[in-house]
Amino acid sequence: MVPTLVKIDFGKPASAQKGIHNRFHPDIPVVASIEPGQIVKVECIDYSGGQVGNNDCADDILDLDHSTDHALSGPFNIVGAEPGDTLAVEVLDVQPSTEQPWGYSYIAPGVGSIDDPNDQDADKRAAKSIWDFHGSSTSSRHIPGVEFQSRAHPGVLATAPSAELLAAWTKRECELVNNCPHTFVAPLPEAVGAFVNQDDLPEELRQRIYREGARTGPSRETAGNIDVGSLVAGSTMYLPVFVPGAKLSVGDLHFSEADGEPTAAIEMAGILTMTVSVIKRGVKELGFTSPVYMTSPREVIYRKQLTFTGICVSPNGVQHFSDATLAYQNACWSAMRYLMKFGYSWEQVYMLMATAPLESRVIATANKPNTVVSLGLPVEIFKFDIMPGNGPIVARDLRKPAALSPARLAAFLAGSSANGH
Amino acid sequence: MVPTLVKIDFGKPASAQKGIHNRFHPDIPVVASIEPGQIVKVECIDYSGGQVGNNDCADDILDLDHSTDHALSGPFNIVGAEPGDTLAVEVLDVQPSTEQPWGYSYIAPGVGSIDDPNDQDADKRAAKSIWDFHGSSTSSRHIPGVEFQSRAHPGVLATAPSAELLAAWTKRECELVNNCPHTFVAPLPEAVGAFVNQDDLPEELRQRIYREGARTGPSRETAGNIDVGSLVAGSTMYLPVFVPGAKLSVGDLHFSEADGEPTAAIEMAGILTMTVSVIKRGVKELGFTSPVYMTSPREVIYRKQLTFTGICVSPNGVQHFSDATLAYQNACWSAMRYLMKFGYSWEQVYMLMATAPLESRVIATANKPNTVVSLGLPVEIFKFDIMPGNGPIVARDLRKPAALSPARLAAFLAGSSANGH
Amino acid sequence: MVPTLVKIDFGKPASAQKGIHNRFHPDIPVVASIEPGQIVKVECIDYSGGQVGNNDCADDILDLDHSTDHALSGPFNIVGAEPGDTLAVEVLDVQPSTEQPWGYSYIAPGVGSIDDPNDQDADKRAAKSIWDFHGSSTSSRHIPGVEFQSRAHPGVLATAPSAELLAAWTKRECELVNNCPHTFVAPLPEAVGAFVNQDDLPEELRQRIYREGARTGPSRETAGNIDVGSLVAGSTMYLPVFVPGAKLSVGDLHFSEADGEPTAAIEMAGILTMTVSVIKRGVKELGFTSPVYMTSPREVIYRKQLTFTGICVSPNGVQHFSDATLAYQNACWSAMRYLMKFGYSWEQVYMLMATAPLESRVIATANKPNTVVSLGLPVEIFKFDIMPGNGPIVARDLRKPAALSPARLAAFLAGSSANGH
Amino acid sequence: MVPTLVKIDFGKPASAQKGIHNRFHPDIPVVASIEPGQIVKVECIDYSGGQVGNNDCADDILDLDHSTDHALSGPFNIVGAEPGDTLAVEVLDVQPSTEQPWGYSYIAPGVGSIDDPNDQDADKRAAKSIWDFHGSSTSSRHIPGVEFQSRAHPGVLATAPSAELLAAWTKRECELVNNCPHTFVAPLPEAVGAFVNQDDLPEELRQRIYREGARTGPSRETAGNIDVGSLVAGSTMYLPVFVPGAKLSVGDLHFSEADGEPTAAIEMAGILTMTVSVIKRGVKELGFTSPVYMTSPREVIYRKQLTFTGICVSPNGVQHFSDATLAYQNACWSAMRYLMKFGYSWEQVYMLMATAPLESRVIATANKPNTVVSLGLPVEIFKFDIMPGNGPIVARDLRKPAALSPARLAAFLAGSSANGH
Repeated sequence: MVPTLVKIDFGKPASAQKGIHNRFHPDIPVVASIEPGQIVKVECIDYSGGQVGNNDCADDILDLDHSTDHALSGPFNIVGAEPGDTLAVEVLDVQPSTEQPWGYSYIAPGVGSIDDPNDQDADKRAAKSIWDFHGSSTSSRHIPGVEFQSRAHPGVLATAPSAELLAAWTKRECELVNNCPHTFVAPLPEAVGAFVNQDDLPEELRQRIYREGARTGPSRETAGNIDVGSLVAGSTMYLPVFVPGAKLSVGDLHFSEADGEPTAAIEMAGILTMTVSVIKRGVKELGFTSPVYMTSPREVIYRKQLTFTGICVSPNGVQHFSDATLAYQNACWSAMRYLMKFGYSWEQVYMLMATAPLESRVIATANKPNTVVSLGLPVEIFKFDIMPGNGPIVARDLRKPAALSPARLAAFLAGSSANGH
Repeated sequence: MVPTLVKIDFGKPASAQKGIHNRFHPDIPVVASIEPGQIVKVECIDYSGGQVGNNDCADDILDLDHSTDHALSGPFNIVGAEPGDTLAVEVLDVQPSTEQPWGYSYIAPGVGSIDDPNDQDADKRAAKSIWDFHGSSTSSRHIPGVEFQSRAHPGVLATAPSAELLAAWTKRECELVNNCPHTFVAPLPEAVGAFVNQDDLPEELRQRIYREGARTGPSRETAGNIDVGSLVAGSTMYLPVFVPGAKLSVGDLHFSEADGEPTAAIEMAGILTMTVSVIKRGVKELGFTSPVYMTSPREVIYRKQLTFTGICVSPNGVQHFSDATLAYQNACWSAMRYLMKFGYSWEQVYMLMATAPLESRVIATANKPNTVVSLGLPVEIFKFDIMPGNGPIVARDLRKPAALSPARLAAFLAGSSANGH
Repeated sequence: MVPTLVKIDFGKPASAQKGIHNRFHPDIPVVASIEPGQIVKVECIDYSGGQVGNNDCADDILDLDHSTDHALSGPFNIVGAEPGDTLAVEVLDVQPSTEQPWGYSYIAPGVGSIDDPNDQDADKRAAKSIWDFHGSSTSSRHIPGVEFQSRAHPGVLATAPSAELLAAWTKRECELVNNCPHTFVAPLPEAVGAFVNQDDLPEELRQRIYREGARTGPSRETAGNIDVGSLVAGSTMYLPVFVPGAKLSVGDLHFSEADGEPTAAIEMAGILTMTVSVIKRGVKELGFTSPVYMTSPREVIYRKQLTFTGICVSPNGVQHFSDATLAYQNACWSAMRYLMKFGYSWEQVYMLMATAPLESRVIATANKPNTVVSLGLPVEIFKFDIMPGNGPIVARDLRKPAALSPARLAAFLAGSSANGH
Repeated sequence: MVPTLVKIDFGKPASAQKGIHNRFHPDIPVVASIEPGQIVKVECIDYSGGQVGNNDCADDILDLDHSTDHALSGPFNIVGAEPGDTLAVEVLDVQPSTEQPWGYSYIAPGVGSIDDPNDQDADKRAAKSIWDFHGSSTSSRHIPGVEFQSRAHPGVLATAPSAELLAAWTKRECELVNNCPHTFVAPLPEAVGAFVNQDDLPEELRQRIYREGARTGPSRETAGNIDVGSLVAGSTMYLPVFVPGAKLSVGDLHFSEADGEPTAAIEMAGILTMTVSVIKRGVKELGFTSPVYMTSPREVIYRKQLTFTGICVSPNGVQHFSDATLAYQNACWSAMRYLMKFGYSWEQVYMLMATAPLESRVIATANKPNTVVSLGLPVEIFKFDIMPGNGPIVARDLRKPAALSPARLAAFLAGSSANGH
């Protein structure tokens, strides 16, 4: 039988679970060992550690404590892995927990990457959508009119950084923060919120890990929160090894994610089945110094896509230079405006941009100054016809997403927009 | 029979061809009319207007006169199209000219978007690859070891800008250039190199067009040089109309292009078959203020991809903030380094990044500061096994691309790197 | 939570399970009700009811009691379904039982459809292969060198026949048997082996069902053992309703099946998740008098296939008239001979013909007398290169499938080949 | 430049063209030579040799002289090919002639394989549909409501039989005809209608070829009229060589063909581009004694299919034994009845069964006596919604196909149904 290396009591918060942690650090002890070629199962709580409820109110989104991101399972010792080797992590299966056959997405002030720059209310918006899983497909009572097949995957696969790499991360990210002091640009190491749910961890070590550990938000050389929506069963991720045993962490399972993931994907708790092999000296011999993956023949691809494009001119008409991020944002905004014509709210389409099986491609970068990026909407996933040219668009009665409670909204509007994220 | 609206004498330079032009301007007279629903053919010279030869020397690349980019066919009057309408341009077929069953790609100083920032020789590099077309597939004697199926498409589809839009383009691009005075950032209007190959054009109008006309390099709201590699037969491009009759220009045919197109795709001369319909008041009713397209079931998609990822940390270790362009570059550089292990030169793999059917996807943007972008290499297109983990990589004897002649290289190295692009 | 309508104690034989049955009859009482639109889970024992073991000896295959085929779960009352309606059964998920993460295929005398007509030993061959499930993929220690992604599906979905339809089946099948008295051509109603595992079934009714009930082997108007390998999660099967409540039976789960299924697919025990809706008067209004299904975007399709063809000339050179069955057999035999060159035995390749994701297409039927049928081998599923023209084929050391024990083989050879099928 | 080995004056009948022939015989002289690896073009007249016109009357279908089938280009000497070798014929491109951008399908008494057994008028039906080519897609004024992308391919690729093989063909087909004297079952050698359009062919040889030559209708060991709809650009066909130089014949180009091709595909005149290589001793070393092909990544596959199934019970209720041909017919009839509900005539849907990109798969053969075969209708190709369950089906005003002229119909009905096939 396939062993289960970490077991989660789904429905309980992260603090009640053993074998999970939320910082990257070379000295976190491993919780189990995996032999190369062995098939193992790992249970994973959702990335927030159970902070979000299956209900119709978004207050919990405003309360989300991001200092505890991401509740990861592991780390695991990969027997025989040494610094300079490359791990090949084959994803064999990703299933939601049977006790919790649903997931969530949300938007919140300061969290997303496609906030509307002209929207005076952007910092007041918090909304949530609950996605019910129907076997391999999903739909949301908060975003009616769409249903799609899953592309379930782990958002986080990570080897541990060496002490040197960790130091380099901290240095470069602090420099960035120091150069842009007025905006949220990166989560820096911070003991508040940190946890390593292992009983016999020496307190000195624990405090050092909490103090020094890299935050899990950004993806880095070890993959980490890389959020590859294509990393479904049948795919393989290649990761560089920086410490003896690799110290592999996994988690942040998604039922589905759009390319570009501008806010939360469909976050879920569940079970990852995987096998790991070791390519000796892969870092040097393959030259894989950053994550590389093989796609899977299982990935569901909806080929018929109504595809929006963006260039790098800002909404207020300023020309930027070869800025693919802005081009991506423009493609999203263009698609969002179109979908809103069918009756959706801004909040709803924002969440669709992160959850549905959309395809975003870097189209062209050499034609300065206008980088072009695309965003494709699969025609098949909508229950109404989104094809242009078939007559006037009729706005439907598409219900609103789970929003803030009236009291909470009033309090929030009265207070500061302090949350950061 | 299907009419051919512009006829090209393939093999002759742009100056010998009627019905072509290389600037965008509302007052360029139309050369022919197209009824909605009518099927038409349009012959197109290659974007450079015949400046590049099918030979093994890259000197012509260094001599390329970019002031004459792009030699476009048209413009065409779309009967009944008015400002505010949306054109639906259905691509029905794209064929190379039978007289010229080959295309070319190249790199040149200052042209590409993924020049190696650590490469001291980057501004000395000029190289070319000739791609022979074998029916629907292609290979290059200058980049052995790869062969792939075409995704033939027009790089440029463009409606004409209104006078107001043209003025806005010029204003915003001049401001960008003024704010970055020391680098090439955008091609501004310039009479040198401009042409409208129509006999009876009043001289005053001609000079005004040459003086004011927008350069064709960057993609803008009217699509223009949008370089969508997916715009193969069976796809449809939706374009906003800004002037009466739309004044549609087409050209810049590619036999194949990689996502991200960091330098020239496989440029070719050929024949575009298309049909155009008009969606009245589409700009307002659909909200399509920028180009939108429907994908085609014909597009060849190679699903098995070894996929490299990049984040926005520069090669010298500096952390940037949510920069998808840098992430795309890192993904390319990672893939390029890997392919070079098999025996290719930097020049060869750079051209592969723009020509082969690679897939680049925006993976994740919300996890600040590290945007993630992917670059997938289709395993099938290589004649050797590029899968990692199957033993040591053996460098093959893969011949060099067409390079500069010794004399030319010496002269170039002695002189300035003045070309601009 | 999703209700589980039938629960199986996996690993125990069919006789120990409630809510299963192995005959089709209008009067079998339903074991549970399903509301239209409700999502339900149904556990299913493997088709044989647990007769085959995970071991390396094929003796159990020779002992297989086919009189008890197929152990089906149900029948279920579909609330509101009436004769003349059409059921739309959406397959939402098919998972192997976690206790039994393996399946089996086999060949046995008289069972398959592609027995070698020139093989003197055909009636002595019995072999088995055990397939281990690695998440979404599978491989077999008995057929090394192949690994592929699942296309898990229910082999049997069936509404109950009306009394009239049941009578028609029995009549037409008896006539066939009577016209071909010397060969096994169809399983006729037979009380031996019949079971309906419900406690409170009146004995008279039970005996009548056993006596009259249609055998489950052949597919018929109600679908039944239709063995559509494409019926994976995300697909929908449309079935005609002949009795009040439809009386839906399900089972015979497969992890994977080849087109054409000439012997057992990869048989497994597991859990089906589905939802059922009712199209009123669908039989008349849609004209769906036989099963119809919608394919799923989830189905794994391996596009690169080395494809063998067959025409309807028998191996001994006799020309048959427009016989697609013989053409299919010839395509299989051609593919099998090719694969045997790589080192496989006849038994192994026979089982591959029924288990791997092969694609068999009816190519052409109008060109009398030679109907053409194809059989495609996906290149990707083999761990060695099966492409022709890359040098001489080297036979590998590919281990033998689980075969009969020496004692059993001797006894079998000495005895009659009486088994029937 | 790529040489064109046979040139056709499109629009003229077969008798006016050099380098074509319509029988298979080892002694037909080659018309040109092809070096292994060389790329060549071959022009091909339509299979009928120009007998069918682009008009709205089907009288020419009734007049079709099938004794002259198929007008093939060649044969070609493949330099170095010897008996026992295997040819690898790579299809590089298939284009309709630019002078004749249309094709045709038809039904006629005795020609098809899915004539309705209950249709008293079957022997009176003759109908035609003209398909206009719009670049890569096609539609027909005679079958409105459908449009689809091409899968252009050669219906015939054939090596020449040896004298021995030719004799075996004649023997086995004569035996079949003799055993079924009352029906049309196979076209036997017949000098009437035969032609080899070469000027200097000795008369004795010519007469012998005409007398002995195999008819081109049926596919056989040399491929011949194999009608593989997947043989699009990018695919490769492997053929056994029986005579020195292989003597390759090509022709019968189709713009599109349905799996199962029960009557004429979309027949067209056009140009085939191909390259041929030789695998020495392939017949023995690969064991390829019948045609084998590699699929192409270019083939357009419409994945979303409403799929009908058939078993081998005849329309009058008689159970047949494992008859895949009857199962295919039942699947077609079921799909045809469904499509007729939308307003089509029997003639129209019959032609759709042979022309649209339908997929027919052999589903299951082991479950005696009922073989199951499927027939999938791509949902995307219809301009109206064919999905079941979305409300009542409304019959549209879908115009009739080109039919017989009144005079001709009357004469035909009065006369015998003598045509043969």
